[in-house]
Amino acid sequence: MTAIATRTEHDLLGDRDVPADAYWGIHTLRATENFPITGTPISAYPHLIDALAAVKEAAALANEELGLLASDKAAAIVAACREIRDGKLHDQFVVDVIQGGAGTSTNMNANEVVANRALELLGHAKGEYGYLHPNEDVNLGQSTNDVYPTAVKIATVFAVRGLLKAMAVLQDAFARKAVEFRDVLKMGRTQLQDAVPMTLGQEFSAYAVMIDEDRSRLAEAVELIHEINLGATAIGTGLNAPAGYAEAARRHLAAITGLPLVTAANLVEATQDCGAFVQMSGVLKRIAVKLSKSCNDLRLLSSGPRAGLGEINLPPVQAGSSIMPGKVNPVIPEVVNQVAFEVIGNDVTITMAAEAGQLQLNAFEPIILHSLSESITHLHSACLTLAERCVAGITANTEVLRASVENSIGLVTALNPHIGYTAATDIAKEALVTGRGVAELVLEKGLLPAERLAALLKPEVLAGSGSPVV
Amino acid sequence: MTAIATRTEHDLLGDRDVPADAYWGIHTLRATENFPITGTPISAYPHLIDALAAVKEAAALANEELGLLASDKAAAIVAACREIRDGKLHDQFVVDVIQGGAGTSTNMNANEVVANRALELLGHAKGEYGYLHPNEDVNLGQSTNDVYPTAVKIATVFAVRGLLKAMAVLQDAFARKAVEFRDVLKMGRTQLQDAVPMTLGQEFSAYAVMIDEDRSRLAEAVELIHEINLGATAIGTGLNAPAGYAEAARRHLAAITGLPLVTAANLVEATQDCGAFVQMSGVLKRIAVKLSKSCNDLRLLSSGPRAGLGEINLPPVQAGSSIMPGKVNPVIPEVVNQVAFEVIGNDVTITMAAEAGQLQLNAFEPIILHSLSESITHLHSACLTLAERCVAGITANTEVLRASVENSIGLVTALNPHIGYTAATDIAKEALVTGRGVAELVLEKGLLPAERLAALLKPEVLAGSGSPVV
Amino acid sequence: MTAIATRTEHDLLGDRDVPADAYWGIHTLRATENFPITGTPISAYPHLIDALAAVKEAAALANEELGLLASDKAAAIVAACREIRDGKLHDQFVVDVIQGGAGTSTNMNANEVVANRALELLGHAKGEYGYLHPNEDVNLGQSTNDVYPTAVKIATVFAVRGLLKAMAVLQDAFARKAVEFRDVLKMGRTQLQDAVPMTLGQEFSAYAVMIDEDRSRLAEAVELIHEINLGATAIGTGLNAPAGYAEAARRHLAAITGLPLVTAANLVEATQDCGAFVQMSGVLKRIAVKLSKSCNDLRLLSSGPRAGLGEINLPPVQAGSSIMPGKVNPVIPEVVNQVAFEVIGNDVTITMAAEAGQLQLNAFEPIILHSLSESITHLHSACLTLAERCVAGITANTEVLRASVENSIGLVTALNPHIGYTAATDIAKEALVTGRGVAELVLEKGLLPAERLAALLKPEVLAGSGSPVV
Amino acid sequence: MTAIATRTEHDLLGDRDVPADAYWGIHTLRATENFPITGTPISAYPHLIDALAAVKEAAALANEELGLLASDKAAAIVAACREIRDGKLHDQFVVDVIQGGAGTSTNMNANEVVANRALELLGHAKGEYGYLHPNEDVNLGQSTNDVYPTAVKIATVFAVRGLLKAMAVLQDAFARKAVEFRDVLKMGRTQLQDAVPMTLGQEFSAYAVMIDEDRSRLAEAVELIHEINLGATAIGTGLNAPAGYAEAARRHLAAITGLPLVTAANLVEATQDCGAFVQMSGVLKRIAVKLSKSCNDLRLLSSGPRAGLGEINLPPVQAGSSIMPGKVNPVIPEVVNQVAFEVIGNDVTITMAAEAGQLQLNAFEPIILHSLSESITHLHSACLTLAERCVAGITANTEVLRASVENSIGLVTALNPHIGYTAATDIAKEALVTGRGVAELVLEKGLLPAERLAALLKPEVLAGSGSPVV
Repeated sequence: MTAIATRTEHDLLGDRDVPADAYWGIHTLRATENFPITGTPISAYPHLIDALAAVKEAAALANEELGLLASDKAAAIVAACREIRDGKLHDQFVVDVIQGGAGTSTNMNANEVVANRALELLGHAKGEYGYLHPNEDVNLGQSTNDVYPTAVKIATVFAVRGLLKAMAVLQDAFARKAVEFRDVLKMGRTQLQDAVPMTLGQEFSAYAVMIDEDRSRLAEAVELIHEINLGATAIGTGLNAPAGYAEAARRHLAAITGLPLVTAANLVEATQDCGAFVQMSGVLKRIAVKLSKSCNDLRLLSSGPRAGLGEINLPPVQAGSSIMPGKVNPVIPEVVNQVAFEVIGNDVTITMAAEAGQLQLNAFEPIILHSLSESITHLHSACLTLAERCVAGITANTEVLRASVENSIGLVTALNPHIGYTAATDIAKEALVTGRGVAELVLEKGLLPAERLAALLKPEVLAGSGSPVV
Repeated sequence: MTAIATRTEHDLLGDRDVPADAYWGIHTLRATENFPITGTPISAYPHLIDALAAVKEAAALANEELGLLASDKAAAIVAACREIRDGKLHDQFVVDVIQGGAGTSTNMNANEVVANRALELLGHAKGEYGYLHPNEDVNLGQSTNDVYPTAVKIATVFAVRGLLKAMAVLQDAFARKAVEFRDVLKMGRTQLQDAVPMTLGQEFSAYAVMIDEDRSRLAEAVELIHEINLGATAIGTGLNAPAGYAEAARRHLAAITGLPLVTAANLVEATQDCGAFVQMSGVLKRIAVKLSKSCNDLRLLSSGPRAGLGEINLPPVQAGSSIMPGKVNPVIPEVVNQVAFEVIGNDVTITMAAEAGQLQLNAFEPIILHSLSESITHLHSACLTLAERCVAGITANTEVLRASVENSIGLVTALNPHIGYTAATDIAKEALVTGRGVAELVLEKGLLPAERLAALLKPEVLAGSGSPVV
Repeated sequence: MTAIATRTEHDLLGDRDVPADAYWGIHTLRATENFPITGTPISAYPHLIDALAAVKEAAALANEELGLLASDKAAAIVAACREIRDGKLHDQFVVDVIQGGAGTSTNMNANEVVANRALELLGHAKGEYGYLHPNEDVNLGQSTNDVYPTAVKIATVFAVRGLLKAMAVLQDAFARKAVEFRDVLKMGRTQLQDAVPMTLGQEFSAYAVMIDEDRSRLAEAVELIHEINLGATAIGTGLNAPAGYAEAARRHLAAITGLPLVTAANLVEATQDCGAFVQMSGVLKRIAVKLSKSCNDLRLLSSGPRAGLGEINLPPVQAGSSIMPGKVNPVIPEVVNQVAFEVIGNDVTITMAAEAGQLQLNAFEPIILHSLSESITHLHSACLTLAERCVAGITANTEVLRASVENSIGLVTALNPHIGYTAATDIAKEALVTGRGVAELVLEKGLLPAERLAALLKPEVLAGSGSPVV
Repeated sequence: MTAIATRTEHDLLGDRDVPADAYWGIHTLRATENFPITGTPISAYPHLIDALAAVKEAAALANEELGLLASDKAAAIVAACREIRDGKLHDQFVVDVIQGGAGTSTNMNANEVVANRALELLGHAKGEYGYLHPNEDVNLGQSTNDVYPTAVKIATVFAVRGLLKAMAVLQDAFARKAVEFRDVLKMGRTQLQDAVPMTLGQEFSAYAVMIDEDRSRLAEAVELIHEINLGATAIGTGLNAPAGYAEAARRHLAAITGLPLVTAANLVEATQDCGAFVQMSGVLKRIAVKLSKSCNDLRLLSSGPRAGLGEINLPPVQAGSSIMPGKVNPVIPEVVNQVAFEVIGNDVTITMAAEAGQLQLNAFEPIILHSLSESITHLHSACLTLAERCVAGITANTEVLRASVENSIGLVTALNPHIGYTAATDIAKEALVTGRGVAELVLEKGLLPAERLAALLKPEVLAGSGSPVV
């Protein structure tokens, strides 16, 4: 067995050897030992790694501009950050996604990787921190407590932008079906009982509109995420960040990311507050609730093929059973349901983590990031999968749907204003007991003349105009 | 306006007038002013009021036995407590159900009511605490921190016993239907898709068995609630409770309540630990999950009357709609679903309250009591209502059910071992596309002789023997 | 025993006697029998009762305007509704707060009370529905499925307005303390470890700002609640509501309530969607999280009196212990914590209820209303109680706070840019081990001249400018 | 670019090419395309892969025993399963952890891998299913609906056994400290206010006892997981599983796993019921609540170093801050808190998934497995990390602790039985206002003679005997 080449680094607790080729250093090493929780490293969040690099780059530029950092150091830091934002060195971000320390280990992992790559670019060896130091140069004017939430917010903005697009794809898939099914008459149901007629187009239109509204709410919630606390340093008082630093750093960070970032008015509050994440998670939960409800409906409407409602057909995407030949199951809505349950559970996790903040800081932002990130990315996949592998291929069993209207006792509601609630109730009761049709009974009892009745039961009258197709 | 007669009482903060006819005193008065949260007084929990009186009675007997309390005082306290346990004076328990102070206000409310009633029994006026004092006599050797959780546990035991009975009623209602429907053949479904045949009796038997299992879990969880910390006083060290006190108090309390109470082995731990309540709430949540699932099924199976599954009929208990004549809705299962959602939410509340305990005490037991009490009593009502107003009157649409089996493509699964999964898949596909029957296609293709086929498709074979009726 | 006088009413299920003097009728009677869940009647929500009356009044005016309802009937309905909105007849709203049927029983309770009171005003006896009918006249052009959510939304708007005011009171209480404590220097803490100096004013300012932000979010969420679906009737198709009805009803309802109500663009979607309630509950949960965190801080900062942080004093509002003399506990923050836990649990209940909606309706709006109503009113009480009984009376232990800064090792952070992170780390380690002061060690080692050091450690420098007082 | 060698497979939906060297086949291929949700394959659950292989092995042996499967086929299947249980071929389990279809894709992935490896062992090429078929041979007499829950249960049993051991390690760490600190006197606190004296040993003993109780609850919950439904096939009726099959399969499975497995009495119920998982998750949540509370305490007791309670020292495991030199944070308890929040959120996910089951099956078991698996393994890591990297190295600040008792006003409680609650209250008030000591005031007022007072305030008296060290 060959010894691995190492270099020795030093911190508050003493000396440790780290692999010579590692860009990360002693703080990262200790963190990997301290947090063997999930086995998943933070490189699993590429948006976060990019955002950390963007923050470090912006800070270096601000420090240089304020005369606090030599230009050659700043240039090297900026170059290292750009490499990371180009997708390089992500494998050096190795601390566990669930970690103590309010994100300090993530920030130090970034400081060390940037410092060591910058050292190389300056012609030095990794670990020669006398030339450029992770804390004194890369982290200059910063604290984990402003860097980490700022990076988490930027990462979240980019992740949410992706989700908004995926939701638009799903909305569009439902809207196309709303148009396709605009003339397909069916029975509407309330409380799973036959109610009054509508069109299948109206039904799918509602799914599209729900997503549209949820997109609006998500867009509002992501606005709040653009408020950052960079420049707050440890607790929001800005200790060690000179005048003008917060504004310069924000300006550079906005330019680098292309985001309209604003600095919070009260940095003490901003440094301890997780409200924007709770709000974001609350909106994700709302989206999950609606998605799950829509998938429940799709599964119900496609139940059968013979002993179910059988109103629509979901496209078959895989054999459904290892034992029942020919069975096809609604696996795509089912997987979306499960993502929804996960998002709802994550919201409780985020709520508890936010509530557990104490005094000037919330130490539990790593689990907030983790849960939020899972919720966003899984919803993203779920929306696209639902749109492309299910909704786009849905077909209607038009005959089944039409027959359900013609046989329906619910038709009697339409006659309510013309024969009265009491008489209509009697007709309904008789129809139920005898199995006969509403129209037949109304005519037999001479409650309405035939032409009038026919006019009242015309599809376009029954399905109403209250809900135009999208 | 006539002035209300008052008496003046004194505490740490000074003097206050309380109504002369009130059995409660200054501590209760301040508490009612401090906690104007819900408007619901603790008298809303009659089990708790009785349990508090039982604890005070047991403590007085123990104190007398140990020579710490004069016999006349002890006798008066015991008599006052028995009146309360007979249902008197409950209206004097006026502090809000949601209160700060770890239950101190509830305990002091009890101390004051017992003291003032005992004073009357001794021939003194209310408020003459020189003769018998709420803290020094009624609360002697006790602290809120042992009295309150002990009383909450006793109250919970009695409430849970009621729930266990209500669950047995519901289980029995389902079991009767399982017997009634034992020969009604129907299609079983997985993932809302037609699967293989079963009987309606088997379906209802499953609901009965679920409740039976839940009752076992609940009975186990309530066992844990019999462990009390009386004698722990403030933090479990038993300060101010003399040797023998804890055991004497437990013995008297067990005799008074008829419950096999045990004193916790480690009183420091027992005084801060809410684990038994979290466990209890977790089991209530489990019950809620199953009840809700069963009610979802009942609503689904009774969907219709014409555009739904229409397999069973729930008894109509009220008109369903203000606009749709003749509509009847599954309102009983719906109300049970809502109780289930409430219980599941309460579990989160209890979880957070339990997690928020600090050091030697959990200050948040009042909300634990409140949420637990609501969960138990609402589940109790829900089970009885579901049994009596819904399950008992359910009827089967036998013809619909039988036809669904005869038309089913799922029958092909039964032929799997005889014609192979691959051939069976082809039959299923053809049946689906052509609308033809499985048996017909099997015979046409000569895959099985007619008699063999008939034997394989006999109801008793199809529905199997894996799940005997309860 | 005297027989109670009764009248006989009739519905789909047959005849029933109701008390002669009851304004409610047979539908309400059956509902009270069907839902014996909580024992709390819907009159516990006065905003809802008023809102139902407002909807019935608006509908009558719209029906009259469109020529569908005779003027005398309309006038009587309007008069009855105004009595209810004046606080009369609330005791006639007797159905249970947790009920099946998607609110039908609540709507029918309103229809019956309005009809019977209107009958009296027209000179008829209660129950003479031939003259004016609960369904055919009071409910004309309406369905529970549009009336109920519309009324719930109006009730919620008014309840939230109250909460917004209560939050403003609390914000103001914190802001006054922020000004009062603006010059009180103290140690800030992160992760419960000493961090860097700040002022107590900055600390309280953060609490005020949190509430301010939450008020903004709540104001946004309540905007969404102004969108109603009146005119949708059963499933959003507007069946039985003539052209112009939805607009006329909305116009009248806006005038009656003074609210800028808008009709949803897609009524099918609006009738099944509970998104606005989920969003509202999500924001209430966010408020609860922040309130709970602030209360945790108040309890921590006031811990002691001798073995705690002892930085601030909460005003004593009641004796704290039944056994420990002189003990005063933070009972007001504790009760607020518990309300927060309840609100967070209610959010899960609301989430599950919203997710459980099926097809054209969510049958579980009653539990959504119930949970939402509790969350809003309890938060309202909690905010006022916290402001008035706690925050307003908080005092600072100025000496303790100042000493904590002077003794602090955290001061070394301020020297970081001047002596470097590595040297500062060594100073910190030595201070911790020896118990000596940071300034003393820096001078001893000649790291900075005395005047420079004094300038760096001036309070106004230490506490920074990042966070102006409110 | 070289083409990858492929083989063609066929299913209900048609033909697809799979890589020639893949052990998985067409069903797995479609599943990977259908569920691109998390990117994490089911091989992330090694216990599950082993359990699936154990089930397939047991089924093959049962089928052989009943004469349904040729011996050479059975031997090949058994050999393939043993390889998997030896850790081989795990990389062939590639379907996503979050998947629709009730676990069918996981079962088919197993069927295909076992079949193809068995084919190789028989001398055939992968994909030559004419010789040995994934459905007709490997899955013979089985359905996903019995295989999958059975395998999940076995996997859970093994994972929980690991957790039980990790909890024992943590309990032991706390218990050792309880002994070490048995004579360290300190102030106990209730509601964060000074209460009465105790020992630090008693405080740590409580943490040990909590874990001990939780271990008992977990051991009870895992008992319930030993009940399996193998032999139920599709819906519990046992269709296609011959008489004796369920018992033979259970017997073989028990022998293979070494677990005392039992077959559920009612297989229809067992196939749709997720109660045992809900119960298990509820107990995990209970454990999380207690762990989080204990970690909150550790963080609070170690707060400082100078402006906190400073009663204990956690061992430093990494530098705490990127900006504050010398700061050390309680990162290990913090990471455990976050795992606890995750487990509590997962419990909500599992609850919703369990509630969403319909009729004869719960289609959402994959997310239940996923959430349960994360909760168990993360708690496992958290317990070990807390024990080894934190609790084992905790030291006490004995002087600080003793001084807190000597200065305490809470001492007065011990005098309560001797001078009365009222006099004691006055002493407490005066001590608080003047800053003087309780003993001093008692002597000055002549309330007790000096020797008597000294006897009452002896440590062993104050800390009581109610709570023996573990």
